[in-house]
Amino acid sequence: MLLVVSGPSGVGKGTVIAALRGLRPALIESVSCTTRPPRPNEVNGVDYHFVSRGEFERMLAQGELLESEPVYGEHLYGTLRAPVAEALAAGRDIVLEIDYRGAAQVRERMPEDAVLVFVAPPSWEELERRLQGRRTEGPAEVHKRLGRARREIENMVHYDYVVVNDDVDEAAREIEVILAAERLRCRRADAEALRRRLLGAATEG
Amino acid sequence: MLLVVSGPSGVGKGTVIAALRGLRPALIESVSCTTRPPRPNEVNGVDYHFVSRGEFERMLAQGELLESEPVYGEHLYGTLRAPVAEALAAGRDIVLEIDYRGAAQVRERMPEDAVLVFVAPPSWEELERRLQGRRTEGPAEVHKRLGRARREIENMVHYDYVVVNDDVDEAAREIEVILAAERLRCRRADAEALRRRLLGAATEG
Repeated sequence: MLLVVSGPSGVGKGTVIAALRGLRPALIESVSCTTRPPRPNEVNGVDYHFVSRGEFERMLAQGELLESEPVYGEHLYGTLRAPVAEALAAGRDIVLEIDYRGAAQVRERMPEDAVLVFVAPPSWEELERRLQGRRTEGPAEVHKRLGRARREIENMVHYDYVVVNDDVDEAAREIEVILAAERLRCRRADAEALRRRLLGAATEG
Repeated sequence: MLLVVSGPSGVGKGTVIAALRGLRPALIESVSCTTRPPRPNEVNGVDYHFVSRGEFERMLAQGELLESEPVYGEHLYGTLRAPVAEALAAGRDIVLEIDYRGAAQVRERMPEDAVLVFVAPPSWEELERRLQGRRTEGPAEVHKRLGRARREIENMVHYDYVVVNDDVDEAAREIEVILAAERLRCRRADAEALRRRLLGAATEG
């Protein structure tokens, strides 16, 4: 299963996914590609695949990206198609933390596998508090992120599920329940295989 | 939430629902209407609402039935709309054990509330064994039920979820997980209310 997690900057997506991986250690976390330079402490291939703009544009042109987002305009972000396809072929679940535009692309390109979860803040005030509390960004950056948060929330209605991140562990447990239920979801191919298996042995006798 | 449970006769729907009510005592079990006469031990209003064919046809004509099925041709079965609407208005979950034709009617009439779960047998041989093991029906009745079971299974693909009843408690737990996840599902009205609540306070600043 291909789990897509979106939500406004500051809502705590990363923390929720970390808690979810505590509950499901077999879950693979997708590593995005980006053209932005690595920050200190960031490791290539772990935090991101750091690529040049030329390399990114080549991957995009050759259809190697499952989704891509010109997030802040200046830098490009995307997800390589191959590692996702390999994880799914191996029967593993994989989680992508991407924005609403990337989520829409994944939904369109992998409608049978993608489960879209939106992580919402308990309130707007709380989101502002969390963004300001980070102290890693100046007021201009916070203001820009709040503008993007509005657009993320405006697109919430297109997701399959909404999880409010009031408590990190509870939000992670809710996503775990979603994954368990989605495994029981009646996908056409699986249901037809089961039907054939059941009725192959059924003669009109 | 309006939980619809279908599956072939003999698959153990009733036992699974009883186990599910053990896990969720607040779940209401819908009582169907039928024109067939009560069997010994059956209590009117508990096992079924026993009504005359004239009364059934009046309810049907006046739109009082959420769904109805001429199951064995001879006798009519249906679900009153009012108790279902009352349960949902009170915020309670209600479960309907009905066949694939009734399920299709519920889906069409209450698309926002209905969650359709199909209970499948682990194998056709096991279903035959369970039906024959009942010993309450003669071979002709068993044969008729197996024919209906084929039609139920052929329609499985139209359900939201498929639960294989290999172990009753596990099947009940799986339906409980489905209910928990469906509560997080992004229904347009709820998502729009949350969006308004979050963004009502968000000024473009």
